[in-house]
Amino acid sequence: MDDKDTRVDPALLAGNRRPAAGYRATHFLWEVKEGVATVTLNRPERKNPLTFDSYAELRDLFRQLKYADDVKAVVVQGAGGNFCSGGDVHEIIGPLVKLKAPELLMFTRMTGDLVNAMRQCPQPIVAAVDGVCAGAGAIVAMASDLRIGTARSKTAFLFNRVGLAGCDMGACAMLPRIIGQGRAGELLYTGRALGGEEGERWGFFNRLAAPEALAHEAQTLARQLVEGPSFANGITKTMLHQEWAMTIEQAIEAEAQAQALCMLAQDFNRAYEAFVAKQKPRFEGN
Amino acid sequence: MDDKDTRVDPALLAGNRRPAAGYRATHFLWEVKEGVATVTLNRPERKNPLTFDSYAELRDLFRQLKYADDVKAVVVQGAGGNFCSGGDVHEIIGPLVKLKAPELLMFTRMTGDLVNAMRQCPQPIVAAVDGVCAGAGAIVAMASDLRIGTARSKTAFLFNRVGLAGCDMGACAMLPRIIGQGRAGELLYTGRALGGEEGERWGFFNRLAAPEALAHEAQTLARQLVEGPSFANGITKTMLHQEWAMTIEQAIEAEAQAQALCMLAQDFNRAYEAFVAKQKPRFEGN
Amino acid sequence: MDDKDTRVDPALLAGNRRPAAGYRATHFLWEVKEGVATVTLNRPERKNPLTFDSYAELRDLFRQLKYADDVKAVVVQGAGGNFCSGGDVHEIIGPLVKLKAPELLMFTRMTGDLVNAMRQCPQPIVAAVDGVCAGAGAIVAMASDLRIGTARSKTAFLFNRVGLAGCDMGACAMLPRIIGQGRAGELLYTGRALGGEEGERWGFFNRLAAPEALAHEAQTLARQLVEGPSFANGITKTMLHQEWAMTIEQAIEAEAQAQALCMLAQDFNRAYEAFVAKQKPRFEGN
Repeated sequence: MDDKDTRVDPALLAGNRRPAAGYRATHFLWEVKEGVATVTLNRPERKNPLTFDSYAELRDLFRQLKYADDVKAVVVQGAGGNFCSGGDVHEIIGPLVKLKAPELLMFTRMTGDLVNAMRQCPQPIVAAVDGVCAGAGAIVAMASDLRIGTARSKTAFLFNRVGLAGCDMGACAMLPRIIGQGRAGELLYTGRALGGEEGERWGFFNRLAAPEALAHEAQTLARQLVEGPSFANGITKTMLHQEWAMTIEQAIEAEAQAQALCMLAQDFNRAYEAFVAKQKPRFEGN
Repeated sequence: MDDKDTRVDPALLAGNRRPAAGYRATHFLWEVKEGVATVTLNRPERKNPLTFDSYAELRDLFRQLKYADDVKAVVVQGAGGNFCSGGDVHEIIGPLVKLKAPELLMFTRMTGDLVNAMRQCPQPIVAAVDGVCAGAGAIVAMASDLRIGTARSKTAFLFNRVGLAGCDMGACAMLPRIIGQGRAGELLYTGRALGGEEGERWGFFNRLAAPEALAHEAQTLARQLVEGPSFANGITKTMLHQEWAMTIEQAIEAEAQAQALCMLAQDFNRAYEAFVAKQKPRFEGN
Repeated sequence: MDDKDTRVDPALLAGNRRPAAGYRATHFLWEVKEGVATVTLNRPERKNPLTFDSYAELRDLFRQLKYADDVKAVVVQGAGGNFCSGGDVHEIIGPLVKLKAPELLMFTRMTGDLVNAMRQCPQPIVAAVDGVCAGAGAIVAMASDLRIGTARSKTAFLFNRVGLAGCDMGACAMLPRIIGQGRAGELLYTGRALGGEEGERWGFFNRLAAPEALAHEAQTLARQLVEGPSFANGITKTMLHQEWAMTIEQAIEAEAQAQALCMLAQDFNRAYEAFVAKQKPRFEGN
């Protein structure tokens, strides 16, 4: 590589570099530690339901992660042995049944935008799923990049149980690509709960952990991602999303460009030099 | 919800409400009972092959189901321990080898239109697959929404055994999304039969049943679907189809609109009121 | 079929009929025997890495296979108990870290074009994967149509281990369609090796073979493909590729046209006549 001075005035990019470590969350717990941000849904007495407020805050926070270069991976989990019971019946469903079309679309677009924000931030998201994982909770797990479950976890896309369609927040597009069209259809048409072992067998969960080890394993996996080449990992995430509906030829050209860009980042060079020196590379995400 | 009178003159929608219960099928058995329509391919001495006539009648009947609001779910099965042996060699393949290009295209479009009709009607379709399920029979199973097999079932996309390509009636698009690209390739390039247990392991079958319990289990599953919110289930089916080749962002917006529509249907309200009253909801499909 | 003389002057199509049997490979072994072409990556002391030269030669050779009607199926394998260790660190990565953007794009387009060429030739490709199958080696396996592994095989999309993104040569598009989005994400974000049994369970491998039987099983499978209707099999491959990002309706129309074309080929007639005569058909690929 050149020896030229590649430093830039930090002020130039300030609008795109907004640390998330100092964020004070209102409707859930938020912690950033050594590059791993952890969202903990924290109303354990109700199995961590979502509300209008927590939806909107999650959406806004994941949107901001696009600019948070102090965060390299995210863990989403629930407090008290459950992941998330979905939209609260009293705080969400009760009000919704009274709304008219424009307001309902405002709501469904907000929930969909949470998934958009989760897919569009560069950080891989690890969902740590124990106990109840239902409705919008199942969607949040589905919209994550990696999922660790427990044998006792119950993941239910239960929309049809409350009279709704399975097409919620992208489920009819995304779930079939994770577990296959036939299995996704079954979960969406019946609303039945997917058990942990079944979920691992179907590829919904990357693996299972013991409930008491789940949080630790999720942190360990996230830390492993943080130690990887985080700029390149962000490009991996972008391309998995971007190539969703491309032809193979378009995808190959898109990857040629994206990978060439990654070859110009310093982490590629770091890996090479570490290899030559028979050391483990230390990536810096640039 | 408003108390305003929402009744409409039934005559206005008569063209879109054509009960299917009274339909008299010529080339297979047809029964409608409490919302479940059952198609039984019924030439058991030949393992229920398809013919030009039965293809066309199935296509037309599934097309009509779009307007049949007395049918909320469909079961497709075969009589006598086999599902369907596919296009009859004497009645279909014999004539085909004599046709010219325009007539051949007429035929392949007809068979493709059966799959289109199966995908475009709002009712989820349950295939109950025992014994031989071959060629066009395998396609009919594949084009269904849910599949129950038996351990002894043999599902063969055997087109290449008769000198044809695996691209029949949508198989190169749909089969890979059900069982994965690599496994689909194997079945389509070799024409080998997929066993029941293997089919369950691969996600082709949602589950297996004992042969003597198969018809009952298929009816039970269909009845469960009928008791669900059938308008919303029809939207689920539409969106699983509609989002096939969308980007994630497009799918999320499409689902925001579709789900907002479902929130305006009475079944959503019924579910909420039942929940508040600690009762099981009774959906009416509107 | 008509009795009219359908012979054409061979010279007319000479530009599209270039036998590959006589090809002399420089950077790997190449053999054509009874319709099966075998590529053997052959630098066993380095676990068969790819170099700039071998990439380019493989790309050019697979491009030529479009016109090689003496080849009906391809086997790709590695010598000495390993498949392929990917891009050689000294011969590829070393030079790459010194290149600028246009040259890097030239390189990533070349590697992507190898996948394009593998997908666009009509011959189904069988990858026989033993031992190390890493980086670009894993991509070559992924870009094949069928994969036989061994229990000891280790398939690693290890791009992020060398500081790069997982989006290499189409991996973010193709791998999720083979093993599902969640499992593909894990392999691409972590670079971890996929074991043989796990790979079979996930649908990456069609089956496993004992290491000493692998080459024989791959040849046997390829020979089975050669004995099939190779024109139709080529159309199957084309359509699996072509329908990648189509809607279901578009795919069904595309298959109606493609299958009508196959019904006009003689192999369809041969199958019918063999059936009537209670014989096994002998396909000729036309």
